[in-house]
Amino acid sequence: MSGPARPHAGEVLGRFVAESRWEEIAPALRHEAVRSLLNHLGCALGVAQDPAVTTALQVMAGFSGTPVATVVGQGRKLDPMSAAFVNCIAGNLLDYDDTHLRTVIHPAAPVAPPLLALAEQRGHSGAEVLHAFLLGMEVECRIGNAVSPGHYDRGWHITSTCGVFGAAAGCAKLLGLTAAQAWNALGIAASQSAGLVENLPSAAKNVGMGNAARHGLLAALLAGQGYEAAPAAIEGPLGWARAMGDAPQIEEITTGLGGRWEIARTTYKPYPAGIVFHAVIDACLQLRAELEVPPEAIATVTVAGDALLLARGDRVVRTARDARVSIHHSAALGFVRGKAGVAEFEMPAVLDPALAAFRARVVAELDASLPRGGARVTVRLSDGRERTALVLHARGSEARPLSDAELAEKFRDNAGLGGFAGRAGAALDALWALETAPDIRGLMALLG
Amino acid sequence: MSGPARPHAGEVLGRFVAESRWEEIAPALRHEAVRSLLNHLGCALGVAQDPAVTTALQVMAGFSGTPVATVVGQGRKLDPMSAAFVNCIAGNLLDYDDTHLRTVIHPAAPVAPPLLALAEQRGHSGAEVLHAFLLGMEVECRIGNAVSPGHYDRGWHITSTCGVFGAAAGCAKLLGLTAAQAWNALGIAASQSAGLVENLPSAAKNVGMGNAARHGLLAALLAGQGYEAAPAAIEGPLGWARAMGDAPQIEEITTGLGGRWEIARTTYKPYPAGIVFHAVIDACLQLRAELEVPPEAIATVTVAGDALLLARGDRVVRTARDARVSIHHSAALGFVRGKAGVAEFEMPAVLDPALAAFRARVVAELDASLPRGGARVTVRLSDGRERTALVLHARGSEARPLSDAELAEKFRDNAGLGGFAGRAGAALDALWALETAPDIRGLMALLG
Repeated sequence: MSGPARPHAGEVLGRFVAESRWEEIAPALRHEAVRSLLNHLGCALGVAQDPAVTTALQVMAGFSGTPVATVVGQGRKLDPMSAAFVNCIAGNLLDYDDTHLRTVIHPAAPVAPPLLALAEQRGHSGAEVLHAFLLGMEVECRIGNAVSPGHYDRGWHITSTCGVFGAAAGCAKLLGLTAAQAWNALGIAASQSAGLVENLPSAAKNVGMGNAARHGLLAALLAGQGYEAAPAAIEGPLGWARAMGDAPQIEEITTGLGGRWEIARTTYKPYPAGIVFHAVIDACLQLRAELEVPPEAIATVTVAGDALLLARGDRVVRTARDARVSIHHSAALGFVRGKAGVAEFEMPAVLDPALAAFRARVVAELDASLPRGGARVTVRLSDGRERTALVLHARGSEARPLSDAELAEKFRDNAGLGGFAGRAGAALDALWALETAPDIRGLMALLG
Repeated sequence: MSGPARPHAGEVLGRFVAESRWEEIAPALRHEAVRSLLNHLGCALGVAQDPAVTTALQVMAGFSGTPVATVVGQGRKLDPMSAAFVNCIAGNLLDYDDTHLRTVIHPAAPVAPPLLALAEQRGHSGAEVLHAFLLGMEVECRIGNAVSPGHYDRGWHITSTCGVFGAAAGCAKLLGLTAAQAWNALGIAASQSAGLVENLPSAAKNVGMGNAARHGLLAALLAGQGYEAAPAAIEGPLGWARAMGDAPQIEEITTGLGGRWEIARTTYKPYPAGIVFHAVIDACLQLRAELEVPPEAIATVTVAGDALLLARGDRVVRTARDARVSIHHSAALGFVRGKAGVAEFEMPAVLDPALAAFRARVVAELDASLPRGGARVTVRLSDGRERTALVLHARGSEARPLSDAELAEKFRDNAGLGGFAGRAGAALDALWALETAPDIRGLMALLG
């Protein structure tokens, strides 16, 4: 061996987290942290009445310590670890939250909840929370890059498995851990990384998610009290990346760290459907607006897309879960309802005779020349007319990001679904002003 | 496809757990459950003052709900999930607990703590706890068989990764879950399975262990409240066994279930050293007794063993951890101290000049003809005499199991190390009578 030893991945990340200064972060990135938090909290409010969330709350409440941390939309508090568990589940329940497209990680859900809970307990400022949130999500996505795409293909639910690192990094920052302690926190997180793709269609998915949030906090707390981890817990021969990935690219974790920000590439969904269906919905909404005819006037709709769209979306729709990954349901919503919000993918919509009838008139067709995430929709009317719309970049994609106003509108919709329409405005005001808020508790009081 | 569909692994295990009746379990196996629990609790008492345990307690105490479950040797209680976390760490801290040799799983540590905690909270009988304990350990070892040896070789700390299934199965039994709920509990456990070999030399190992115990309980509680998992969470194409093992043998999980018991093959360590060093210690103790000479009369000691013994144990000893996996230290203890208890592997022993001088006189030598776990020790005295001892089956191995009296002696030693010598007798009495105890709380009161 010659040359200096390469530093450990966790060592570099630990230093990055401990030494980062908010003042040195570009304003656009700071604003992205606000947008991401706003999007996350709206998603959590929207599903506050869902049994998956209330059951998690009920079980955790039986084991909660001093209730100091708000459970979003539940009118009660739990201890920070328990609150983080429930809030992470809520934020990601419908996969309607943010997406880092390269890894398909939903970055915010595992990271924001433990930070908000800790900050509410300890009284941190808005800027401190946003800073830790950004750093945590950046660590999470970079570790995800190192094992993608093999990691997910092998069966690992990457938002859970990488989320725990993001939560640990963020909590390490908020707790003021040293670089060495943050390194240990990441190593401890490695031994808690879990969650399976096989379980995605079930509530077991939620447990992997909730644990990612809870365990990042636990890792940081233990590291702060002197618990250590192996130096190469992430990249060592018997460490995380090799156990969980077949050909990890460890350099992806640290190359350009602090210069190029992965988290600047986060996208937000305008529709609570699988992301590859968004272009289908956009194209149908566009044709509906152009044609101005009732659904009955449409004879057939042909949706062309790439292999992934066809593999994921050409299916019979029987459940809400089916609806969220259906070409036919997406097209029907565009033409029949003219919108595609949360309610449009729930059981009443699945069973709506008008939508069911329309779904039967939709044909899916492979066009390998179309890019991933694009779609071409061709409508034939009963009178013989034909019209085509091509969408290469869906609304909400990296090329067409949602505006602040669109994100606020999504937040209001979600808040209304959860039964919190009356507080949406005040919560939005608090979020947009969060960077200068001296204490996070003002925001949390609006979210209970 | 023809023929009936093969049932899912979790489905068969769930039925096994839900339908098993204590009355149908052979008396020898019931007694083994008592021996295993006794051995586990002694190990936990022995390390009650260790900072790894007290730090875990301190961090968990900050998040504990109603304190109803005893933390062994700590004079206090926590909520059942938190107590299970700390007690599992303590039971396995020195790897001095039980061993299922085929998988190298330490079966008791992740399973007993959540059961004792739940039983103390709910008031279960000794037999109910022992029954759930046996079933949990059986599920744990069988799932371990299905992925061994590739799983550990890939970097998975198998006691943590399989322990969560054992804890889930045991808790499912104690909570009286239906077969379908127990199946879901195992599927939820799959999404919580974690723990890395790379982290074994550090405190991060403890976190993986503690979580296995805690999460088995969480899985069972959530399943009892209606949380579901994918039917093939264990063996599906994107499920646990394929994500975490390269060539799983799923049939190992269910073949002969309830007939052949893996847990009947558990072994207990007489020495807190790596298990392959036990034959070395035995041979040296035997030679010391035969020769009756002071250590100074010994010129050299040659220890011959198989490739694994040499690979693991031919090392310089600088730390307590080194000492526990050193041929030289093991031999020195046999001749110089004539015993090999917990104190003989701690730093004062590592630094003892008499032991250090003796270690330098020990030579390790490969003899590929020796079986795994055997050793041949040859002593040459200063006066030219030579004597050899061959041990093929170490004390405590499957061929030479520790007697009840030896296990009780180990328990007393451990209790004394932890500072609980005064209660050891009463605790032993309670343990040997546990099968007929109407309530586990009598035992727990002696362990606080």
